Amino acid sequence: MTSARPRPAVVLVSGGLDSATILAIARAEGFEPYAISFDYGQRHRFELEAANRVCQSLGVKRHIVVPLDLRAFGGSALTADIDVPKDRSDEQLATGIPITYVPARNTIFLSVALGWAEVLGASDLFIGVNAVDYSGYPDCRPEFIAAFRQLARLATKTGVEGTPWHVHAPLITLSKADIIRRGLSLGVDYGLTHSCYDPDPQGRSCGHCDSCQLRLRGFAEAGLTDPALYVTSAAS
Amino acid sequence: MTSARPRPAVVLVSGGLDSATILAIARAEGFEPYAISFDYGQRHRFELEAANRVCQSLGVKRHIVVPLDLRAFGGSALTADIDVPKDRSDEQLATGIPITYVPARNTIFLSVALGWAEVLGASDLFIGVNAVDYSGYPDCRPEFIAAFRQLARLATKTGVEGTPWHVHAPLITLSKADIIRRGLSLGVDYGLTHSCYDPDPQGRSCGHCDSCQLRLRGFAEAGLTDPALYVTSAAS
Repeated sequence: MTSARPRPAVVLVSGGLDSATILAIARAEGFEPYAISFDYGQRHRFELEAANRVCQSLGVKRHIVVPLDLRAFGGSALTADIDVPKDRSDEQLATGIPITYVPARNTIFLSVALGWAEVLGASDLFIGVNAVDYSGYPDCRPEFIAAFRQLARLATKTGVEGTPWHVHAPLITLSKADIIRRGLSLGVDYGLTHSCYDPDPQGRSCGHCDSCQLRLRGFAEAGLTDPALYVTSAAS
Repeated sequence: MTSARPRPAVVLVSGGLDSATILAIARAEGFEPYAISFDYGQRHRFELEAANRVCQSLGVKRHIVVPLDLRAFGGSALTADIDVPKDRSDEQLATGIPITYVPARNTIFLSVALGWAEVLGASDLFIGVNAVDYSGYPDCRPEFIAAFRQLARLATKTGVEGTPWHVHAPLITLSKADIIRRGLSLGVDYGLTHSCYDPDPQGRSCGHCDSCQLRLRGFAEAGLTDPALYVTSAAS
């Protein structure tokens, strides 16, 4: 690969705050981003609409939405008919694995991204996982990322032929406030993003689920107001 | 898990010879099999029809077919409009990674199986990979399986909570002839299976692609005749 073409990278874009930030980071680091989103039977469509807005706003070489219906096996409040928990305390947010955990989600998403990357001749993947405000998800930790990189090396033609894989998780040790500051410095419009697990029919965020709480706390810590629309006064 | 219920295991069933054999092995080892197949934009439907026949014949607790359209990124003769190679020599079969390689396929399939297993409370996965007649696929090697097991441990709630994951690849060191002998001893009807990459419109196998060649060679080495239907006299 001696061409002057920028290096391609596959970026996992959910439409949330974190993934918008990593897309901006991938661009700032000189990569040509190929964005991938999943239609995995989310409870609502606002996430995918936000993913489209974010990709258009920040600019990507291509954006694909892969249909992958995880409702076939259920088991999570994000895909099955289970209530999303609300107004959990800081202690609850910081401990345990909540019901919104989708089994093996990041493993599945990174695996599909890996396949696409290999077809594109890319050896860089970007994922917006975060181990600080990670709500207890096991597949958001640095050791998970390291294990996936090792797997990628062994699983692929590219890896076997000696190309090292890079799994970029630039947010992994940042607080939500730091992520927001970083994104704003790179021109991210967080008003385009969607984080809420349980929005109203108009797509306004609930302000009470884990994702809203972590997001609102991040903006507050950064001394900023979240530009997203909320149903209640919880946002203020 | 102190109930008398047999241990559940998720078995990857493609409809081919190898996956039928591992399904029989999982049953013989006392597991309650949950079969998973993928509709990944294969060039033909005969594989999935064979998967259904195999599951019905051997008995499973449940069989799901997960739609996962890998044609979105192309890049393989098995999913894109690229000719399937035919009549390759023994030397060609034994070396290199052929165009029928689907990037990251086994990683993707195992990842989805992992998610379903976690929902089911299973910690055993069965995959029919084979490192002897593996046609050069990197994701059919023992080191790949070991790396996936390590990833599963770190990626899942179950793993974090201390349950060890078992990724069974009981065919990995067997020759095709040994696999066939093993399956026959467990009552597998290989006439129900489909291996060909490029069947005719009636579903008859071509006899010349890598998969047919390896299969025919296996039956010949075992001193048996393949019960599958072939287009040409290559089978005899």
